[in-house]
Amino acid sequence: MQVHAYAAPAAGEPLAPTTIERRAVGSNDVLIEIEFAGICHSDIHTVNGDWGPQPFPVVPGHEIVGRVTEVGSAVTRHAVGDRVGVGCMVNSCGECVNCQAGDEQYCTDGMVGTYAATDRDGTTTQGGYSTHVVVDADYVLTVPAGIDPAAAAPLLCAGITTYAPLRKWEAGPGRKVAVVGLGGLGHMAVKIAHALGAEVTVLSQSLKKQEDGLRLGADDYFATSDPTTFEQLAGRFDLIVNTVSAKIDLDAYLGLLAVDGTLVNVGAPAEPLDVNVFSLIGGRRSFAGSMIGGIALTQEMLDFCAEHHIGAEVEVIPAAKVNEAYERVLASDVRYRFVIDASTIA
Amino acid sequence: MQVHAYAAPAAGEPLAPTTIERRAVGSNDVLIEIEFAGICHSDIHTVNGDWGPQPFPVVPGHEIVGRVTEVGSAVTRHAVGDRVGVGCMVNSCGECVNCQAGDEQYCTDGMVGTYAATDRDGTTTQGGYSTHVVVDADYVLTVPAGIDPAAAAPLLCAGITTYAPLRKWEAGPGRKVAVVGLGGLGHMAVKIAHALGAEVTVLSQSLKKQEDGLRLGADDYFATSDPTTFEQLAGRFDLIVNTVSAKIDLDAYLGLLAVDGTLVNVGAPAEPLDVNVFSLIGGRRSFAGSMIGGIALTQEMLDFCAEHHIGAEVEVIPAAKVNEAYERVLASDVRYRFVIDASTIA
Repeated sequence: MQVHAYAAPAAGEPLAPTTIERRAVGSNDVLIEIEFAGICHSDIHTVNGDWGPQPFPVVPGHEIVGRVTEVGSAVTRHAVGDRVGVGCMVNSCGECVNCQAGDEQYCTDGMVGTYAATDRDGTTTQGGYSTHVVVDADYVLTVPAGIDPAAAAPLLCAGITTYAPLRKWEAGPGRKVAVVGLGGLGHMAVKIAHALGAEVTVLSQSLKKQEDGLRLGADDYFATSDPTTFEQLAGRFDLIVNTVSAKIDLDAYLGLLAVDGTLVNVGAPAEPLDVNVFSLIGGRRSFAGSMIGGIALTQEMLDFCAEHHIGAEVEVIPAAKVNEAYERVLASDVRYRFVIDASTIA
Repeated sequence: MQVHAYAAPAAGEPLAPTTIERRAVGSNDVLIEIEFAGICHSDIHTVNGDWGPQPFPVVPGHEIVGRVTEVGSAVTRHAVGDRVGVGCMVNSCGECVNCQAGDEQYCTDGMVGTYAATDRDGTTTQGGYSTHVVVDADYVLTVPAGIDPAAAAPLLCAGITTYAPLRKWEAGPGRKVAVVGLGGLGHMAVKIAHALGAEVTVLSQSLKKQEDGLRLGADDYFATSDPTTFEQLAGRFDLIVNTVSAKIDLDAYLGLLAVDGTLVNVGAPAEPLDVNVFSLIGGRRSFAGSMIGGIALTQEMLDFCAEHHIGAEVEVIPAAKVNEAYERVLASDVRYRFVIDASTIA
């Protein structure tokens, strides 16, 4: 089956319309007519070659929402007409200790990414900047009624990436949570942490987005460019979710944690970070990392977001504006996620 | 009250016999006739000036066991004749959030160290290489019957330093725990983790102490100088307790953790460590630090050790051999803790 898509033909080249092949619907597959595909910073890193050589042409997109138009004979979880989502992974071994524990993203065999990855049948995966996609039903999520489908798309990556550490490190009533950076990930972290009942503080370079931050659910907002912030907030937080991938002064941020506090990175800077071990020992603190979440947790997140009326703040664009959108993401000129209207892909 | 002690007169000078003043027994104080005082690596760092200027003369020693010979009028917890212990701290504010939570070692005002620290009354504390010490009863532990008093002394620092992270990160049945380094701290970590029911692996530079490690309770023993160790054990451990204060290749050790695993440092190298954040994100792993434990937890540890017949492996020495013992600690020539027989101090 040939379908329309937007692909990067080579590293650093602008995306352009093309057609790609989707596999025939297998017995456990779901064919999805894509409605919306979010633009994640990872898409840009990948097509720019920042993360090494890629199997070009690459169709990015791992924040996918659409309607089921066909299901394989063995599929019971999804039916034609259902609104569904696909996130960052479309396959894994299903058998290793991590898959069995519901942490398919940590499959010891390596999870299969939604694009630019080698699937278990040897084919190369292609992502959501496309009209249709065929995905194994076990990696397809149900998008509950009550979330706007465009606003739901970014939940599949930005949502689960922040929900997973907030749940693991128990953001909730009585807990003080800081979110570093108010971008695509950060704004989801604020909304979700607030809905979980935590007291939420945004730590952003400047106060430029303060009004937004408070509107999205933050209780406090501080500029990290102001050195008094680090004195004022010393020892305050139980959990800090760092959504900034650039190198930060880790020891300064660790100093903001209470005893037993955790700073968790959901992005990774290319260069290693320095950590003064005394910053950890002096408060039984932890520095951690977290990457998306398993399928069951992703479904839990979608259900939670529906219940709490949470979606991403999105700017829906036609596919022809994807290259312009990439420029604007790189310039931090988006509040807070671009989403491609897939009906404009032709 | 003048008492005999061994003190370092100045940074890097050998310790020598002297007399020091102990305060009169206040209403909440306990006077202890010291029986044994362990030699901790920290003692050596402090008197050598590795940790900055010190209020010389310094009497080291924060692994103290002895008998109560006098109690103040308000003391109910301890009585004359009781065998008691004193660890790394002898005071704290008692009122801050951390003291109230039983984490006096993280007192926001700063805990008062057992030696070379300024006590809350402005005097300088002097440690356990001495015949007697006067300590606030709230910082005095009960040493249960059934632990040899010389073997109990190192529990007050090495014991609690390893017990605290093993409990916090839930070493127990079904959990795989690695201990990096088999020295004073490491040998206690092995004994305690084994008694807690965990599967214990020692990671030591060589296999030199393998027989000891297995005898002390380890199930496995690997040499970190052998690069295949890191391949063979990849993703294996739920918890790694790193007792080595030297700089290590953190990413290599993080690669030994299972999903959700934690590597906790109980010592701190002077220089910062590099951490590749991908090592954490790729398995929702944590890098943490921990420092001794609160008074209640220290008592719990002593009771646990008594119940499980755990003491340190000690070499008891007369006080006159303390400088020689320091040389041997620096040369790693001790299995596994020197303990001074305080009856030889005169």
